[in-house]
Amino acid sequence: MNESWDEIGQLFKNARSIVILSHVRPDGDAYGSSLGLAWTLRALGKEVLVCNEDGMARSYRFLPGSEEVVSTPKTAPQGCDIVIAVDTSTQERLGPTFALWNRKVDINLDHHASNTCYGTWNLIDPLAPASALVCYKLLQALGWTCPKEAASCFYVGLLTDTNAFRFCPLSPDVFRMAAELVEQGADPLSLSEGAYRNYSIGQFHLLREILAQTVFAWENRVAYYRLTPALLKQTGAENTEVENFLTYLQKVSTVQVAFMLEELEPNLTRVSLRSRAPIDVCQIAQRFGGGGHPRASGIRARIPMAEMEKLLLEEIRQVLQ
Amino acid sequence: MNESWDEIGQLFKNARSIVILSHVRPDGDAYGSSLGLAWTLRALGKEVLVCNEDGMARSYRFLPGSEEVVSTPKTAPQGCDIVIAVDTSTQERLGPTFALWNRKVDINLDHHASNTCYGTWNLIDPLAPASALVCYKLLQALGWTCPKEAASCFYVGLLTDTNAFRFCPLSPDVFRMAAELVEQGADPLSLSEGAYRNYSIGQFHLLREILAQTVFAWENRVAYYRLTPALLKQTGAENTEVENFLTYLQKVSTVQVAFMLEELEPNLTRVSLRSRAPIDVCQIAQRFGGGGHPRASGIRARIPMAEMEKLLLEEIRQVLQ
Repeated sequence: MNESWDEIGQLFKNARSIVILSHVRPDGDAYGSSLGLAWTLRALGKEVLVCNEDGMARSYRFLPGSEEVVSTPKTAPQGCDIVIAVDTSTQERLGPTFALWNRKVDINLDHHASNTCYGTWNLIDPLAPASALVCYKLLQALGWTCPKEAASCFYVGLLTDTNAFRFCPLSPDVFRMAAELVEQGADPLSLSEGAYRNYSIGQFHLLREILAQTVFAWENRVAYYRLTPALLKQTGAENTEVENFLTYLQKVSTVQVAFMLEELEPNLTRVSLRSRAPIDVCQIAQRFGGGGHPRASGIRARIPMAEMEKLLLEEIRQVLQ
Repeated sequence: MNESWDEIGQLFKNARSIVILSHVRPDGDAYGSSLGLAWTLRALGKEVLVCNEDGMARSYRFLPGSEEVVSTPKTAPQGCDIVIAVDTSTQERLGPTFALWNRKVDINLDHHASNTCYGTWNLIDPLAPASALVCYKLLQALGWTCPKEAASCFYVGLLTDTNAFRFCPLSPDVFRMAAELVEQGADPLSLSEGAYRNYSIGQFHLLREILAQTVFAWENRVAYYRLTPALLKQTGAENTEVENFLTYLQKVSTVQVAFMLEELEPNLTRVSLRSRAPIDVCQIAQRFGGGGHPRASGIRARIPMAEMEKLLLEEIRQVLQ
């Protein structure tokens, strides 16, 4: 954290046009932080463009302002004064299209401990359970008003990144900030319905199939499934929310590590790993060139899916308690 | 609410031995409220017995003090000064064994709007999202200390009865009380793992089967499944947590009503109904002699399962939006 509130406040004061970016395969916190910040800055009279490599996913269209999210344009918007990145640990994760801008990120707001501080200003709080709270603290520090729509967006970022206030350490302050967001107009009922009751029928069919095909290993301490393009096609689901299905495998009390293997190409495999404390799947991911959080990490490697499955099972066996 | 804090405080002051009861088929709020209150009263030097018709369910054994929960004895414990009921809308729902005591409930603590006020003292707060918060407010009103273990139990009651802070209206105060409980020692990480990562392998197999057999009706606005003794036997699951599987059906964005049919006997069917606002399933349940909350209700009727299915589908069709 190298912030100096006065200088950052001045930076915003002088800016007229602002672009907000977030990571590829965006989640509730990427969208929630981006849009919450956009509502706040627009209320201050700024012109704001929210972009993402993957545009706006169907499942988060309930967020206020989501209709204005655009796919990252191939060139930087004319007259853009500040580029802000939210919830994104490396510049690369902003996507290949932003790379074409050949532009440095001015303000980098994040809660990932692995953030590489690629911005001119880096506001990184690894103790915050969501980037939405890093944004909200920025508002408070600069004395900005939080519009109702911004409170709703930040609430969704907090809600989804904490798995509905579960499976992560939460301080009393986190709940107090949730209380403030509700006070400022976030509606926990409708926002949670939007975030958690949003499956298409195709996704439900995919879930059924995935659970039916789930494999247990090492005395039920590991559970995993394989995702192939054929399975996606068969069920008619999009592949954007698939990794959340790991939470179903983690419900089993004996499961310490859950993972999914996704066959992107015959020789290219993506892996999502989740674990129960104290098992650190980030260390496992790093052995294959991946990374992330200790309890949630990912890999993308030029290894065929079946081989990756064997290698991973062996790596995991060695760290099981 | 007919409380008078002074008189209730006096009642507790004079009591040496206290029994706490909760409803049959107990959930996280029934156990959490009972045990939270027990820890608090024991810290005040009282002798406390926590009983439940169904004893202690496997899935809540992570609650501190759960090992002391007993099945309701056939006669009232000797020397019992006060009987408290928590989270229980009618005296009948305390179970048939308590009925043998032939004893009135002294203090009735609950958050169900349908509570029949069967106690001598009735502390009913229909705006509280969990009975655990009604108990916690009692502690505050009487100036009692909340031990760490009590805070943990109350937190679990709040967490589980609000579906992890989802799908129900929540005021800022609810989050502030969550903050206080965390401050007093409740650990959101380990408690949420206890409450939501507690499936046995048998339960996971049952979930797979139930999702595979789920039926959609009325243009995917209704989803339901049938539970038979054979299915339970086949998967090796207990039947205590089965109705939570309805939350999976409710994830589909088009689903307005989800229900399960359970064949208790060839001519006896139990139904659990869940709905999305504004659909009131309590009204539907009442037509079959059942009841509950507007969004979560139940029926137990002498109607064969197949016939109940037809009748319900027709009733639901009429209230769909």
